[in-house]
Amino acid sequence: MTSLSPYADMSPVIQTAYRARAAAADLAPVPRAAKDDALLAVADALEVRTREIVEANAEDVARAREANTAESVIDRLTLTPERIRAIAADVRDVVALPDPVGEIVRGSTLPNGIDLRQVRVPLGVVGIIYEARPNVTVDAAALCLKSGNAVLLRGSSSAYASNTALVRVLRDAVGGAGLPADVIQLVPGESRESVTELMRARGLVDVLIPRGGASLIRTVVEQSTVPVIETGTGNCHVYVDAEADLDLAVEILVNSKAQRVSVCNSAETLLVHQDIADAFVPLALAALAEAGVTVHADERVMAYAGDSKATVVPATAEDWETEYLSHDIAAAVVDSLEGAVGHIRLWSSGHTEAIVTTSQRSARRFTQLVDSAAVAVNASTRFTDGGQFGFGAEIGISTQKLHARGPMGLPELTSTKYVVTGDGHTR
Amino acid sequence: MTSLSPYADMSPVIQTAYRARAAAADLAPVPRAAKDDALLAVADALEVRTREIVEANAEDVARAREANTAESVIDRLTLTPERIRAIAADVRDVVALPDPVGEIVRGSTLPNGIDLRQVRVPLGVVGIIYEARPNVTVDAAALCLKSGNAVLLRGSSSAYASNTALVRVLRDAVGGAGLPADVIQLVPGESRESVTELMRARGLVDVLIPRGGASLIRTVVEQSTVPVIETGTGNCHVYVDAEADLDLAVEILVNSKAQRVSVCNSAETLLVHQDIADAFVPLALAALAEAGVTVHADERVMAYAGDSKATVVPATAEDWETEYLSHDIAAAVVDSLEGAVGHIRLWSSGHTEAIVTTSQRSARRFTQLVDSAAVAVNASTRFTDGGQFGFGAEIGISTQKLHARGPMGLPELTSTKYVVTGDGHTR
Repeated sequence: MTSLSPYADMSPVIQTAYRARAAAADLAPVPRAAKDDALLAVADALEVRTREIVEANAEDVARAREANTAESVIDRLTLTPERIRAIAADVRDVVALPDPVGEIVRGSTLPNGIDLRQVRVPLGVVGIIYEARPNVTVDAAALCLKSGNAVLLRGSSSAYASNTALVRVLRDAVGGAGLPADVIQLVPGESRESVTELMRARGLVDVLIPRGGASLIRTVVEQSTVPVIETGTGNCHVYVDAEADLDLAVEILVNSKAQRVSVCNSAETLLVHQDIADAFVPLALAALAEAGVTVHADERVMAYAGDSKATVVPATAEDWETEYLSHDIAAAVVDSLEGAVGHIRLWSSGHTEAIVTTSQRSARRFTQLVDSAAVAVNASTRFTDGGQFGFGAEIGISTQKLHARGPMGLPELTSTKYVVTGDGHTR
Repeated sequence: MTSLSPYADMSPVIQTAYRARAAAADLAPVPRAAKDDALLAVADALEVRTREIVEANAEDVARAREANTAESVIDRLTLTPERIRAIAADVRDVVALPDPVGEIVRGSTLPNGIDLRQVRVPLGVVGIIYEARPNVTVDAAALCLKSGNAVLLRGSSSAYASNTALVRVLRDAVGGAGLPADVIQLVPGESRESVTELMRARGLVDVLIPRGGASLIRTVVEQSTVPVIETGTGNCHVYVDAEADLDLAVEILVNSKAQRVSVCNSAETLLVHQDIADAFVPLALAALAEAGVTVHADERVMAYAGDSKATVVPATAEDWETEYLSHDIAAAVVDSLEGAVGHIRLWSSGHTEAIVTTSQRSARRFTQLVDSAAVAVNASTRFTDGGQFGFGAEIGISTQKLHARGPMGLPELTSTKYVVTGDGHTR
C-alpha cells in the first residue's frame, strides 16, 4: 500500500467497490469472444489448480467440524476434485449461452426522423451475498462476467479459505486472458461490518443479490440502500381442484413435495377442494406416507387421518407460512378455487403455485388470480428453475416484482440504455 | 369506524395500503375495455366538477400566498378550468394507449412438452411521493389504472386540499364505472410520519416512485424498505467532439440548455474537445450570452471569456455536479473523447449525455462508453422524454439501472409472471 493510491483513505470494502466500478466500465464494451475466452481459461484453471482449491477447502471443512457444524452444511461446503470438475463444466456451459449485451430490445424511427434504440447493457457492479456454498462463487462470477458485469463476492466466513483460493484462481485466469482481474473480487474481511458496508455502497454497487436463507435475505432487504433483488424463499402450494384426475394429482403432489425437499421450488402446502376431498385426501395421505412425508393437517384433513398409515399432526397458523425444506407438508381443505387463491394470497411467498385440474375454466381462473412468480397448471412446482426453463443457468429465483421475477438468467443481469441518433435535431 | 373492521387496529396509512392491496387483486384481471371506460368517466368527471376542484385549489393557493411561497411554485400549484381541461385531455390520451397487461413477453414449448409463457402483469400497489403539482395526482392515477395497478398518492401537504378534491372526483368516477374505488387513494395525513409509514410498508406496497427534487429522492432511497425507482435528477452533458459541425453544435447546445431550463433533460454542463476549442468556445459563449445563460467556466474556457459579451464566472468543483435548472451552465475543455467520458462518469447523474460529432468512430465510442439512461448523437438532450419517445405518457424518467431506465411508460409499471402448463409433468 502506498499513499499515492487514490483509494488510500477508504475502507478495504469501499476500495474493492471502486476497483470493481472501474473494471466494470472497461468490461462493458468487451465483445463476446473475449469474454468467452476468459471463461474457458477459468474452467481450465479450475481443473489445473484443483489441488490448491481442495487444500484451502480442507481448512474450512476442518474448522466447520471443530465447530460441530451439521453434516448437511459440511456436505455443501466440501469441494472434491469431482465437484470442481462439475463446476468447471458449468462454466463451459455459460460459454455456450448467448451474450445478452448489445441486444436491441426495442427500436424505431420517431416521426421527426430520430432513430431510437433501446440497447441491453451490463448492470455494472453486482454484489452477491451468500452462504457456505463455494460453488456459488464460481457460478456467480461466470454469469456476471458473461453479462459484462463486475462482481463483488461476499460468501460465508465459514468458506473464506475456499473462496479466497477460488477467487485467486478466477482472477489469474481472467487477467491471463487479457481482461481486468478486478471484475471478480472477494469482499475483504470476515466480519459483519463488511456486509454492512457493501449494503450501504449505493452509487458504487448497482445491485445486491442475497442468496440463502430467509433471515439473510430479510437483513439485506431491511438494511441495504443498494437496490436488492430478493431470491429464493419458496412457500409453494399445490391446489387440487374439484375436477381433477386423481392419479395425476397424486403424482404431481408427491413430485412437488418429495422429489427434492431442500429446494425453494418444492411444495410446502397442499390445498384440496372440498368436493374432491373424500376421494383425494385418503390417496394423498397414503402417497405422502409412502414418501416419508409428515402432514400438518387442518381439521378437515385431520378427519381422514384415522384411516391412513400416514403421520398426520394438527397444523397451527405457523404451518401455513413455513418453508419446511424437509419431509413435511401443510394441508387444508378449501371451499372453492377462490378459497385456495385467498389462502395463497395470504400465506405464499410468491414463488410457485400449482393447480391440478381437468377444467379449462379453473386453469384459466387460477392463473389469472394467483400473483406469484410462476403458476403451474398440471405440472410439478419443481419446474420453476432456470435450467428447466431453458435459460441455461440462473443466478437465483426472484420472488419480487421489480426488475426480474422468477428464474433469473443472463438477461436479468442487464439493464438497458437508449441511444438517440439524429442529425442536428432540436426541439 | 366500527370495531368490526379488520383494519381497526392499524394506522390510517397501513389501512390504506391494505385496501389498495385488495383492490389491486380485483383490478389485475380486469380487461382493457373496462379500464378505458373508467378512464373516460374520470376525464368527464374532471370537466363536470371543475368548479369543486378549483375552489379546493384556491384554499391551497391562499395558504401558499400567506406563507410567501415563490411565484413559480404557486404557478405549478394553481389549477384553472383551462388547466383542468388539459389534464382531462391527457387522461383521454391514456385511453388510446395499448394495455400492457397480458402481453406475452416470451413463450416457448420446452423439450419435455411443457408450454412456458412469460406474461405481463400489473406490479400491484404503486406509491407515488411528489411535490406541489396537482396534475401529477391525475396523471399518476390514470397511468396506474390503465396498467392495472392500485395507486397510493402522497402529494405535498401544500396541495392537500386540491389533491383531496381531485381524488374524490377520481374515486367517484372509477366507482361509478364499476371498478373498485380503492385503486386510487390519497395517503391520509399531512405529516412526515405518513411518508415514513409508506416507505416501510414492504410487502404491502410493491414500489415507490418519488417524483420531485433531489433531496426528496435521496430521503426516499435512504429510508425506504419498499423497492424504489429513482427518477428525474438530470445533470446532463453536451460534448462537442474534435470533429463537429460548429453551427449544428451551437444549435444543439443552446436547445439542450435553454429551450426549457427547469426540466431534468436540460443540459447542465458543456464539454469541448481541446482541438476545436479555439473555433467553438467563442461561438458557444456568444450564443449562450444571447440566450441569457451564465457560464461557469474552467480555466481553459475562461481564457476565451475576455473576447465575449457573455457572463462567464469561474467554476468550482461544485459546479460539475450541480443540476442548475436555471439559465446557468458549467463548461470545460477536455483533452479527448475519453476525457469527456471520464468527466461524465465522475459527475453525471446518469440521465442523458449528448455528443456532437461528424465522426462515426467518435459517435460509436461515446455511445459505447457512456453509461447513462440515454445517449444522444447529434440531437438535443431534450428528447429524453416519454412523449418524445412515442410512449404516449410517462410516470417519470428513471436514472437507476434496475427494473426501468430512462422514460417510464405503461410497460414499466408492470411485472411478469411465468405460466407453466403441462399435462401431468413431473421431474
